[in-house]
Amino acid sequence: MTEPLYASMDLGGTKVACAFGTAQGEVVLERTIPTASHEGPLGVLARIADLVNAMTAEVGAAPAAAGMGVPGLADLARGMTRFLPNLATQWRDVPVRDVLEPRIGCPVYLLNDVRMATLGELTFGHGRGAPRTMVFLALGTGIGGGIAVEGKLRLGPLGAAGELGHQTVVPDGPLCGCGNRGCVETLASGPAISAQGVWLMASGRAPELHRLVDGDAGRVTPREMAAAASAGDSAVRDALVRAADYLGISIANLIVALHPDIVVLGGGVAQIGDLLFDTVRATVARRVRMFPVDDIAIVPSQLGTRAGMLGGLAVAARGGVV
Amino acid sequence: MTEPLYASMDLGGTKVACAFGTAQGEVVLERTIPTASHEGPLGVLARIADLVNAMTAEVGAAPAAAGMGVPGLADLARGMTRFLPNLATQWRDVPVRDVLEPRIGCPVYLLNDVRMATLGELTFGHGRGAPRTMVFLALGTGIGGGIAVEGKLRLGPLGAAGELGHQTVVPDGPLCGCGNRGCVETLASGPAISAQGVWLMASGRAPELHRLVDGDAGRVTPREMAAAASAGDSAVRDALVRAADYLGISIANLIVALHPDIVVLGGGVAQIGDLLFDTVRATVARRVRMFPVDDIAIVPSQLGTRAGMLGGLAVAARGGVV
Repeated sequence: MTEPLYASMDLGGTKVACAFGTAQGEVVLERTIPTASHEGPLGVLARIADLVNAMTAEVGAAPAAAGMGVPGLADLARGMTRFLPNLATQWRDVPVRDVLEPRIGCPVYLLNDVRMATLGELTFGHGRGAPRTMVFLALGTGIGGGIAVEGKLRLGPLGAAGELGHQTVVPDGPLCGCGNRGCVETLASGPAISAQGVWLMASGRAPELHRLVDGDAGRVTPREMAAAASAGDSAVRDALVRAADYLGISIANLIVALHPDIVVLGGGVAQIGDLLFDTVRATVARRVRMFPVDDIAIVPSQLGTRAGMLGGLAVAARGGVV
Repeated sequence: MTEPLYASMDLGGTKVACAFGTAQGEVVLERTIPTASHEGPLGVLARIADLVNAMTAEVGAAPAAAGMGVPGLADLARGMTRFLPNLATQWRDVPVRDVLEPRIGCPVYLLNDVRMATLGELTFGHGRGAPRTMVFLALGTGIGGGIAVEGKLRLGPLGAAGELGHQTVVPDGPLCGCGNRGCVETLASGPAISAQGVWLMASGRAPELHRLVDGDAGRVTPREMAAAASAGDSAVRDALVRAADYLGISIANLIVALHPDIVVLGGGVAQIGDLLFDTVRATVARRVRMFPVDDIAIVPSQLGTRAGMLGGLAVAARGGVV
């Protein structure tokens, strides 16, 4: 008897990635289509259904279930999006499950994309083999997150638990897109860090960074800043350490509350590498004094950009978040 | 057949409270003895065993199991204290379970006292009847806490999860007893708040507070400060609002991470009353913008000072934290 296949879809602002794979996380086929910003949700969903059906024809087997990650809030129980701020029409209360299920002929499970990546990391990455208590942070354009307690992803009544980018770290800090001030997202997301690099470059304090990006502000990224810091830009290094320290405070606060086994950092900002991880670990050690933290691993994502895709297979194979 | 009785012991810095009661939280007998600071742990434990045995004789039935709350870190799995900072000899690695069980003739479950109170509130108070996700904060001399996720108390490998008083709220804030800076305990515990009242009184800006406590700094408490604020001391009111706002930040951070059903505030500081609760709710509403928070109840403890005692009966009747 052939092993059942599952589908994983990841809806992004610019593209939709789709994969077919097994419950063991073995991917057999991957395809990508553009999201097409002018389209409304129903148009995008119709093309996703066509893609899944074309992939079904290609592999010769229909998926037994599908997991779909979306960039924003989703209600797993009702299979509806609540609000996807990065998509053109914002997808308020779109009944994704009810639209897709009859077209692709299998159950569809909807989840926030970072919570989906958390589930991927939990099932196939650092959490593999044991019911871990895990904090996952996706450090990108924004900061998303996910929390698993003893192997179970915490979603809450709205699927919104784990919005770790919106922990207040500096009470009077910068205004966040969410409306609050001093969220860790305003201090340690990719754009927040890059803005510091651009400013230092403009004020002549980042010669190495200037050289690396040919003075082009649009090319400044945390990764380029890490390279500039290594090459000798001390002000850039200072900006990176400061951002990592703020991130470390938010992680220290999660540690005193939950005492997780492991903290996993993914997304482009994690590519800063050792300077980021060493600073976060030092901040955690300095701020969590109530119990030893040596046993808490603070590590890069094991699955990287594939965490969400594998999480989609996991939620489909599990039949939800169980 | 008679309903089984359980014992609940609460070890404090000055006294040990002991109660016998049922799995339904009906208390049939209560007794208190002094802790006696000059004694070592074994002396205190011998007297606790004598007390339990005397109570057994009095009610005519031995307890089927016992729960014991301790003011610090305890390892439930091994039944040992780790470190009780408020007791004279600090009780490092005292094998409480192994000492007590043969003397009182029943299983003994050891837990941090605030986690015990969380379990009490979860079983017999606000959490009654449904597996709630609950944040509990005991606002007293220090700030202790407990977290339950879908009805299960989160302990972590050292029984230390839920140390909510040591969340960093102001990165460069006052030095905490734990060694960190800006813990919410340094900003919103009873002594931290009272110190503000004493200072305002000393600088002539708290005439009503001065009147209420006859100018005696030793009588200033958050509760007296609340009375002074009501009577017109605007600077005192401002200090209380500021402390409640800091507390609200730490609660907002827990809400974005966990999306609990309910946040329960106990301890002497909660007696500030409406000014505290209204400020905390306003801060949470202002800072949690990712999802609606109207459904999250932020409420006073339903069991008050009896939460820990009832938690002891619950952990005994459950046979641990399950």
